[in-house]
Amino acid sequence: MSNKHRKQKRRRWVERHPGATETPPKVAPESALSPPLISAFAYGPGELVERQIHSVHELREFLNRCPVLWVNVDGLADHEVIQQIGQLFGLHPLALEDVMHLHQRAKIEEYGDNTFVTARMVQLVEERLETEQISFFLGRDFVLTFQERPGKDCIDTVRDRLRRGLGRLRTGGPDVLLYHLIDAVIDGYFPVLEQFGERLEELEERSTITPDQEVLQKIHRLKTDLLAIRRAIWPHREMINILVRDENAFIKVETRLFLRDCYDHTVQLIDLVETYRELAADLRDLFLSSVSNRLNEVIKVLTIISTIFLPLTFIVGIYGMNFNTEKSSWNMPELNWYYGYPFAYALMAVVTAILLGFFYRRGWIGRGGGGTGGYGS
Amino acid sequence: MSNKHRKQKRRRWVERHPGATETPPKVAPESALSPPLISAFAYGPGELVERQIHSVHELREFLNRCPVLWVNVDGLADHEVIQQIGQLFGLHPLALEDVMHLHQRAKIEEYGDNTFVTARMVQLVEERLETEQISFFLGRDFVLTFQERPGKDCIDTVRDRLRRGLGRLRTGGPDVLLYHLIDAVIDGYFPVLEQFGERLEELEERSTITPDQEVLQKIHRLKTDLLAIRRAIWPHREMINILVRDENAFIKVETRLFLRDCYDHTVQLIDLVETYRELAADLRDLFLSSVSNRLNEVIKVLTIISTIFLPLTFIVGIYGMNFNTEKSSWNMPELNWYYGYPFAYALMAVVTAILLGFFYRRGWIGRGGGGTGGYGS
Amino acid sequence: MSNKHRKQKRRRWVERHPGATETPPKVAPESALSPPLISAFAYGPGELVERQIHSVHELREFLNRCPVLWVNVDGLADHEVIQQIGQLFGLHPLALEDVMHLHQRAKIEEYGDNTFVTARMVQLVEERLETEQISFFLGRDFVLTFQERPGKDCIDTVRDRLRRGLGRLRTGGPDVLLYHLIDAVIDGYFPVLEQFGERLEELEERSTITPDQEVLQKIHRLKTDLLAIRRAIWPHREMINILVRDENAFIKVETRLFLRDCYDHTVQLIDLVETYRELAADLRDLFLSSVSNRLNEVIKVLTIISTIFLPLTFIVGIYGMNFNTEKSSWNMPELNWYYGYPFAYALMAVVTAILLGFFYRRGWIGRGGGGTGGYGS
Amino acid sequence: MSNKHRKQKRRRWVERHPGATETPPKVAPESALSPPLISAFAYGPGELVERQIHSVHELREFLNRCPVLWVNVDGLADHEVIQQIGQLFGLHPLALEDVMHLHQRAKIEEYGDNTFVTARMVQLVEERLETEQISFFLGRDFVLTFQERPGKDCIDTVRDRLRRGLGRLRTGGPDVLLYHLIDAVIDGYFPVLEQFGERLEELEERSTITPDQEVLQKIHRLKTDLLAIRRAIWPHREMINILVRDENAFIKVETRLFLRDCYDHTVQLIDLVETYRELAADLRDLFLSSVSNRLNEVIKVLTIISTIFLPLTFIVGIYGMNFNTEKSSWNMPELNWYYGYPFAYALMAVVTAILLGFFYRRGWIGRGGGGTGGYGS
Amino acid sequence: MSNKHRKQKRRRWVERHPGATETPPKVAPESALSPPLISAFAYGPGELVERQIHSVHELREFLNRCPVLWVNVDGLADHEVIQQIGQLFGLHPLALEDVMHLHQRAKIEEYGDNTFVTARMVQLVEERLETEQISFFLGRDFVLTFQERPGKDCIDTVRDRLRRGLGRLRTGGPDVLLYHLIDAVIDGYFPVLEQFGERLEELEERSTITPDQEVLQKIHRLKTDLLAIRRAIWPHREMINILVRDENAFIKVETRLFLRDCYDHTVQLIDLVETYRELAADLRDLFLSSVSNRLNEVIKVLTIISTIFLPLTFIVGIYGMNFNTEKSSWNMPELNWYYGYPFAYALMAVVTAILLGFFYRRGWIGRGGGGTGGYGS
Repeated sequence: MSNKHRKQKRRRWVERHPGATETPPKVAPESALSPPLISAFAYGPGELVERQIHSVHELREFLNRCPVLWVNVDGLADHEVIQQIGQLFGLHPLALEDVMHLHQRAKIEEYGDNTFVTARMVQLVEERLETEQISFFLGRDFVLTFQERPGKDCIDTVRDRLRRGLGRLRTGGPDVLLYHLIDAVIDGYFPVLEQFGERLEELEERSTITPDQEVLQKIHRLKTDLLAIRRAIWPHREMINILVRDENAFIKVETRLFLRDCYDHTVQLIDLVETYRELAADLRDLFLSSVSNRLNEVIKVLTIISTIFLPLTFIVGIYGMNFNTEKSSWNMPELNWYYGYPFAYALMAVVTAILLGFFYRRGWIGRGGGGTGGYGS
Repeated sequence: MSNKHRKQKRRRWVERHPGATETPPKVAPESALSPPLISAFAYGPGELVERQIHSVHELREFLNRCPVLWVNVDGLADHEVIQQIGQLFGLHPLALEDVMHLHQRAKIEEYGDNTFVTARMVQLVEERLETEQISFFLGRDFVLTFQERPGKDCIDTVRDRLRRGLGRLRTGGPDVLLYHLIDAVIDGYFPVLEQFGERLEELEERSTITPDQEVLQKIHRLKTDLLAIRRAIWPHREMINILVRDENAFIKVETRLFLRDCYDHTVQLIDLVETYRELAADLRDLFLSSVSNRLNEVIKVLTIISTIFLPLTFIVGIYGMNFNTEKSSWNMPELNWYYGYPFAYALMAVVTAILLGFFYRRGWIGRGGGGTGGYGS
Repeated sequence: MSNKHRKQKRRRWVERHPGATETPPKVAPESALSPPLISAFAYGPGELVERQIHSVHELREFLNRCPVLWVNVDGLADHEVIQQIGQLFGLHPLALEDVMHLHQRAKIEEYGDNTFVTARMVQLVEERLETEQISFFLGRDFVLTFQERPGKDCIDTVRDRLRRGLGRLRTGGPDVLLYHLIDAVIDGYFPVLEQFGERLEELEERSTITPDQEVLQKIHRLKTDLLAIRRAIWPHREMINILVRDENAFIKVETRLFLRDCYDHTVQLIDLVETYRELAADLRDLFLSSVSNRLNEVIKVLTIISTIFLPLTFIVGIYGMNFNTEKSSWNMPELNWYYGYPFAYALMAVVTAILLGFFYRRGWIGRGGGGTGGYGS
Repeated sequence: MSNKHRKQKRRRWVERHPGATETPPKVAPESALSPPLISAFAYGPGELVERQIHSVHELREFLNRCPVLWVNVDGLADHEVIQQIGQLFGLHPLALEDVMHLHQRAKIEEYGDNTFVTARMVQLVEERLETEQISFFLGRDFVLTFQERPGKDCIDTVRDRLRRGLGRLRTGGPDVLLYHLIDAVIDGYFPVLEQFGERLEELEERSTITPDQEVLQKIHRLKTDLLAIRRAIWPHREMINILVRDENAFIKVETRLFLRDCYDHTVQLIDLVETYRELAADLRDLFLSSVSNRLNEVIKVLTIISTIFLPLTFIVGIYGMNFNTEKSSWNMPELNWYYGYPFAYALMAVVTAILLGFFYRRGWIGRGGGGTGGYGS
Repeated sequence: MSNKHRKQKRRRWVERHPGATETPPKVAPESALSPPLISAFAYGPGELVERQIHSVHELREFLNRCPVLWVNVDGLADHEVIQQIGQLFGLHPLALEDVMHLHQRAKIEEYGDNTFVTARMVQLVEERLETEQISFFLGRDFVLTFQERPGKDCIDTVRDRLRRGLGRLRTGGPDVLLYHLIDAVIDGYFPVLEQFGERLEELEERSTITPDQEVLQKIHRLKTDLLAIRRAIWPHREMINILVRDENAFIKVETRLFLRDCYDHTVQLIDLVETYRELAADLRDLFLSSVSNRLNEVIKVLTIISTIFLPLTFIVGIYGMNFNTEKSSWNMPELNWYYGYPFAYALMAVVTAILLGFFYRRGWIGRGGGGTGGYGS
């Protein structure tokens, strides 16, 4: 494993030092962060303007133009730009700092002029689990979203819906938009978990049939991934619950009913993750039992072979002794018998038969066949 | 395992993507869902009309005809029909969406005009656990039930009771009907758990006597099934508790006393499931200990045989050496002894006796017999 | 194991289907239930009448005759009789149904005219744990008790105390009687747990000395029994807590002080059961470690013997080869040496000494002796 | 293990039947309980009278003589005396009963005229954990303490402090005395846990170096002792919390500040015990892994020796065959070669070298040395 | 391990006896505690005086000179000095006692005139985890900090920031200083956990590739360290929560917003520690499975070699028997065959081929290669 790859892997687990300074928000240390791509949607029941933004000045003209303004920022490297957006919309410095620190747990914070929400999206990229932070600001007439990285994401469906003017989205306020965005984030967990369900099933089969080192590592990876998912999803529950339960100046009562539905999905997800974790633990037990079954089988073969051939080798050893048959008729008379050699074979056959009978009675051979094995039974 | 079978198995565990749209409710993706069978019961203390319904129009004539109207819909494939029923009875679109998504946890939601309840029925079909979603709407003078699939189910007993006019059912309102239906769903768990109790007992016996691979897989399957049951039953507790505890416009105080009884049953079920889960975990330990016992026995046999025959083979090897007895009287004089050969046998007998004594003192043989085994004791 | 025995064993674990009907209470399915034995105690500070009752009519004459009437019913098979008693004392049908269903968890329910309490007694019958349900009704001037089976039970002490007029029992009201009865039920758990403590201690000793299959099964049985006890005792805590805490028309304030004492005992019991469960789990670990210790010892013996005799056998094999010494002086000159044979022994002695030294340095032999074993150390 | 010793050991775990009678308190069943030693301290800011008391009458003269009277009773066998003290100070019969039953959990109970507190002291006597019950009564101007057994205990420090008139103790009221006593009991746990910490460390070292049967038993004993400590200390937390939090007629507000400190110590103790329990569980894992490491090593030695000598023995066996070289030049011509014997040795050397190379490549020998072992690596 | 080293190691785990005396605070028993280094910072928006203090008298002149006075004491050995500081700032004796006892859990206590806070810093010194206690007093115009040991620590960043006049620190009151100090302590945990994350990753790799004894000990050490970190960090959560939530005379509302951020970091830390603990437990499982995999491989090699060579050795043994071929044509005619010797080889080749086929069919050799191993598959 190259050093760089190792570093990337580590980055998923290790939380960065979240900085002791409060103003201005510290520059996020990763230089690899992409420059921001900014897009704006200004819309109302009858209109929709969509534009790629290249400087914050362009945003000014969108203010107060439509009932709802949605600005989406992809990539958080250019703090200057983010500061400017912060000043434009009157965001609190602490919230901006949280936006730029990439290891937040999902949470919601009220800042008077707007509500700040952090969530975490998940994705499977080439079988590897990746999480991405997304932050929301909900104001009287705007929604801002800040994503860690550009690229395809689960909120594309919301954009489509906006463009096509489906459902209540265009006629609703910014709170309806926020609901749709959070709902898209939460629903993005389901296909990932579906993938995990398939992996579980595949590993269950392989655990019984070919329990090799690779299966073990896959089970380990699955458990680690489920732990990461669990860590990501749990705080959403509390966050959405606060949205549903607490009074909030920017969220209408009707929207809360939909958020309650979203809360149900979160509970369902948590339930599913916990179930999968228990299944994965059971799977590991099944795997270990299968391995121990095979070890048992190997040792049984060893025992059967040894137990049969050691006595036989002893017998042939006897007749390989060089006692002088001429000195005494007591000395190995068998060697001079007419049927001495066949007698030796007969002796060995009897011994073998006795031993096979012993193994058969214990159920080590026969019944069920040597090939099917079974637990040393 | 065929691909199709695998898919079916997976479907039990994997939750479907519950859809991001809110209106109109998304068509459930499985085309295999059966077309709806609709039946209506309109009844009061002195009358009962039962009819199979083929179009929603037929339902209209039942409205306001009797004190209580119960409409049961089996199969959820035809969303058009369900939408029409929704409009007829004034159901909320979010609730209708929940009806059609098949992986809900049991819950209760108030919608002003009616109360929406989701529950989950369980069944053993050819030893395999199947669950089926059932949704209820309770209104001022109606109860609607929506089931995932047609077929024999646990609410048949309620139908029978209605037809025969037994108990308080016919004289009670829709809340009494709802209680009977939920009670039937909950009571449907008991025979399934009784089956699991029998399996536990059978597996306990087999774990001690013939702990083979099949037993292991059965224990694994049992644990997985108990996990599924547990996941299904837990949310019912909260759901019924809300029915018992909270004010509800459509549920009379007397009925709550009966619902409390139903709540007791749910607690009893949860208690039983948790107990079974602990028993299953203990069973797995017992199984593994039995397997390791047998491995022990196999290794003991190997050790006894090896330890006896290795020295004997060594002795016969000695007298198979070819030292020239004529060169020196030091060279293997035994070969020329008169009783050389019997002496060799005597030597081997002594060695064997010493080893057997050693084994006996350690308790590896004798006491209790080689056949009964015992933990390598 | 006979089918019948298996069935009986199962019955302990499997909860019966608690019936979907509410009135009249369903006949309990077990025909083996004994016919009821009814006894009545009517008493006050200065008087005590004790009578065996054969029909419910006889009971009528006891009503209102003394300050307190205690009716005890042993066996629940004759539902007719129980119904009549229910009507006589004005008991609620749901409570009567609970009396006759034998798998209740301990609970308390208020029914206006009386208070209904269910508890569970435990007993060890020939080392096997048995539980029995007991239900209480507390009214203004009566206490009714319904037991599952006749026979010796833990409330005999209360009868004795009544007859002998000891303590405050005769001068107190029905609430004092109820306290004494519940206290007797709870105290009945202690001797059972004392038995379990002795078993634990015995098994701990056997686990280290003779860890055979029987010990394993006894540990398994003990864990199963502790699980059953735990399941029985836990709900009592909540039940008695409600008696202590909640206002109740039939329970005087002074009696609550005594019930608090009873609550303390329940907490102590739960504490003890949980401790025993942890001890039993530790015991299983100790057992498995001992077994693995013995396996280790067996394998060490195998290794020592094999490792010594394989090289020796190889050496004697060398001198059993038939190379022609006459063809060349290179061919096995040892065979013609004057001290060839002693030389071979000396060679073997050296090899053996080296191997023994190797084993000794590793601590496999010597120090501590081959007999005491020790973990393959 | 002698029967008597076994009984003593059991007594630590098994809770006695706490008696069904309420008045007069039942005689504690152990006749081995010592007769009571009674001492009285009457003191105020300027005076201190200390006296050994031989009859309850002597106590009377101490009443109302000084601001604070502390009576300490060591040993609970003579119930007569304890009853008399109870009457003298107006103690409640239920509390007196609790004093005499030796398996109480720590608790606090208000009885109007006085406050009753039970606690549990711990001690290590010859490496064995012993617990002793101590009960307190706090009244307006007195503190009574009842100990299970006479002998050196952790409240000696309080006596010393009283005699020497140190700190606020002499000037404070009975509540200050109670605080000092409870604080001494709690602080008495620390040296015991310090001992356990040392044991843990010693066992950790031995687990890696010499994991024998004795270490296993010591770990088991340690876990059992930690369980007992945990069971003893937990209820103190609630008890002291009630003292700190609830209004109490006899405890001044300033004293509560000190009790809060005592509460902190209890929390610290619980925290420490839980940490030690986790460390002990980890230790057991470490032990088992070490054992399995050694088993691995043993099996590796067996495999290396067998795998080298079996082929060699086979080779020498070949040249021990008796095929008639005179019949055919195909029959074992090697025997008549000039360098036949050295050739055989060369053959064996080659085989050995190949096998050693195989082992080396697998890392079974060499690197790290055969002596250091390593996990079958 | 030297005795001294052992003692030091123990000291980390064992809590000291926290002393029964309340005034004057007991001298901390460790004579190794360093003499205190005292430094004072007096500052306001426009000024900053920094001074090393050598006697408490010097401190007096700083009082009331600037809006904020921060006195930092490094090392707690000289109790006299600490007492004097206590009198100068009016600190409560119980709080001073807590300052000097080095095993406090993080907590907060209100003392009217000031607020007392204890926290715990962590550091990795040469791969070993060390914790250090730090106590804070927050008054109207001062902050006092007491550290266990002098040396580099995580609050140096706060000193720097003060000197450079960055951010809001100089313009804020003592509460802002307290926030910065606590924040620095909490943020000091992150680099330590980052280290642990790297260790986890390294051990995961080594567990699969070279699972030797050293890896096991490292995993054990890691688990022990995580337990210690967990024990240190948990109480901070409650402590900071109280700071955020409760009214406090010395903490302004704006500062609470920042403390909420600090609280979030603590929750994130706890979350991370728990995740690492689960990962470490999984790692141990992975390690054990890898070890058992290697054992399997070793045993498989043993079995293959034994199973092949035992029959071969038996065959060559047969032809080493000395039956007299001259007595009878039944006696070992093979020895006199023309192709007898090649026949023997052919026989052995056939046997070997059959056995190899058997192993191949079972998957023990071939497919995947003998070198790659795989779980006895």
